[in-house]
Amino acid sequence: MCELLGMSANVPTDICFSLGGLIQRGGHTGPHKDGWGITFYEGRGCRTFKDHQPGYNSPVARFVQEYPIKSRVVVSHIRQANRGNVALENTHPFIREMWGRNWTYAHNGQLRGYRQLETGQYRPVGQTDSEHAFCWILQRLSQKYPRTPSNWPKVFRFIASLADELSKKGVFNMLLSDGRFVMAYCSTNLYWITRRAPFGKAKLLDQDIEIDFQQHTQPDDVVSVIVTQPLTGNEAWNRIEPGRYALFHLGERIL
Amino acid sequence: MCELLGMSANVPTDICFSLGGLIQRGGHTGPHKDGWGITFYEGRGCRTFKDHQPGYNSPVARFVQEYPIKSRVVVSHIRQANRGNVALENTHPFIREMWGRNWTYAHNGQLRGYRQLETGQYRPVGQTDSEHAFCWILQRLSQKYPRTPSNWPKVFRFIASLADELSKKGVFNMLLSDGRFVMAYCSTNLYWITRRAPFGKAKLLDQDIEIDFQQHTQPDDVVSVIVTQPLTGNEAWNRIEPGRYALFHLGERIL
Repeated sequence: MCELLGMSANVPTDICFSLGGLIQRGGHTGPHKDGWGITFYEGRGCRTFKDHQPGYNSPVARFVQEYPIKSRVVVSHIRQANRGNVALENTHPFIREMWGRNWTYAHNGQLRGYRQLETGQYRPVGQTDSEHAFCWILQRLSQKYPRTPSNWPKVFRFIASLADELSKKGVFNMLLSDGRFVMAYCSTNLYWITRRAPFGKAKLLDQDIEIDFQQHTQPDDVVSVIVTQPLTGNEAWNRIEPGRYALFHLGERIL
Repeated sequence: MCELLGMSANVPTDICFSLGGLIQRGGHTGPHKDGWGITFYEGRGCRTFKDHQPGYNSPVARFVQEYPIKSRVVVSHIRQANRGNVALENTHPFIREMWGRNWTYAHNGQLRGYRQLETGQYRPVGQTDSEHAFCWILQRLSQKYPRTPSNWPKVFRFIASLADELSKKGVFNMLLSDGRFVMAYCSTNLYWITRRAPFGKAKLLDQDIEIDFQQHTQPDDVVSVIVTQPLTGNEAWNRIEPGRYALFHLGERIL
């Protein structure tokens, strides 16, 4: 299995605090030592840092934590390999273009019988069930919406119906973003929190680090964080019910 | 205009020396200050580091130079913006999946009338003529080869014919790779060199740095480097004639 971390914010925000907690689980406080990756959106563009080395001693991870990239949307993943060997092509997040936007996807779980899923023109590069499922989602989306859709909540409802199908094949917790929306589909475990004024303090569970968000924020900032397991012990995380999804936009949960 | 740097090698090789020279042109010894990027292939996977800050003082560039990633194929680009503003989505290289492989593309030059080029399902994310032309190449390739081709020299000959068409619209120097082959198409300026035993010394033109390749190589290593302008002053670079291309595989020029 793996762990997921997503962020949606209304202002460019750095994710160093949350990432610091997640990365510890990449071989230190957790067994997810088979690579890690993170995608930051900046406008329509995005950049991904990944490594097939364990997160907790990856030079790339150290760099990303020391160089705070500010972003409104972040998707991150640490991997414990099940399907597909430890290699860069099997490291999440996966990014593909659809309707002129970069779509970023990360998966936690394991699927059976995924090879039967038709992916059409969206061919997997690596060997994971995760990327295969992503290609299938894109193929289904391109069939349903050959032209760029405009009713985005409807598009995400359709994606949720695809995720329902996938979760029948095993465990399918997913983060998906086009750089504006962040969708979190829960098959077993997914939690979220929205931080806004008055900001308080938070303490990581995986590292002896505490932050006072008050000192790092403006009064209007709204930031949501989504994870497979809560990162802090002194805050109230909301659980997404299995089989349900949450959609975030500019920091707020909108669906 | 911009500058291009490509590498093809028969063993995983670091590109720090050449990159050190190129990066200086990113706002220091050259005017290419509008972002830079580099893609390293490792197996079927690849990772890209990019920044819309000038290369010569980009923290990401510093990190990449200090953390020598060893790769058989590298494609890099430093940008001087003409079409499309300075933004991450307009920063080369561009990567798209085709036939289950990551294709990496970087362009030097400027095209007129590129908006008429049909890109079909391969939609540009940014606003550059370069990405638009890449999407058009992919669309033409997917039409000609709906299934994965097997005669690769023929595929690259076809790509060269597409590049011929593009270069009628302006300047079109291009590097393109699927992680195995590196293609260099020359419209105005492109130079290459193959380094092999007996290895000698090389001195950068853009920085007071000399390297003795003998100390960093094994006798069987073969490494080709392709650039828009030679990086060293004491080696004999080969020029690709305008309208011609070169194809490299495992360090050797094969076409």
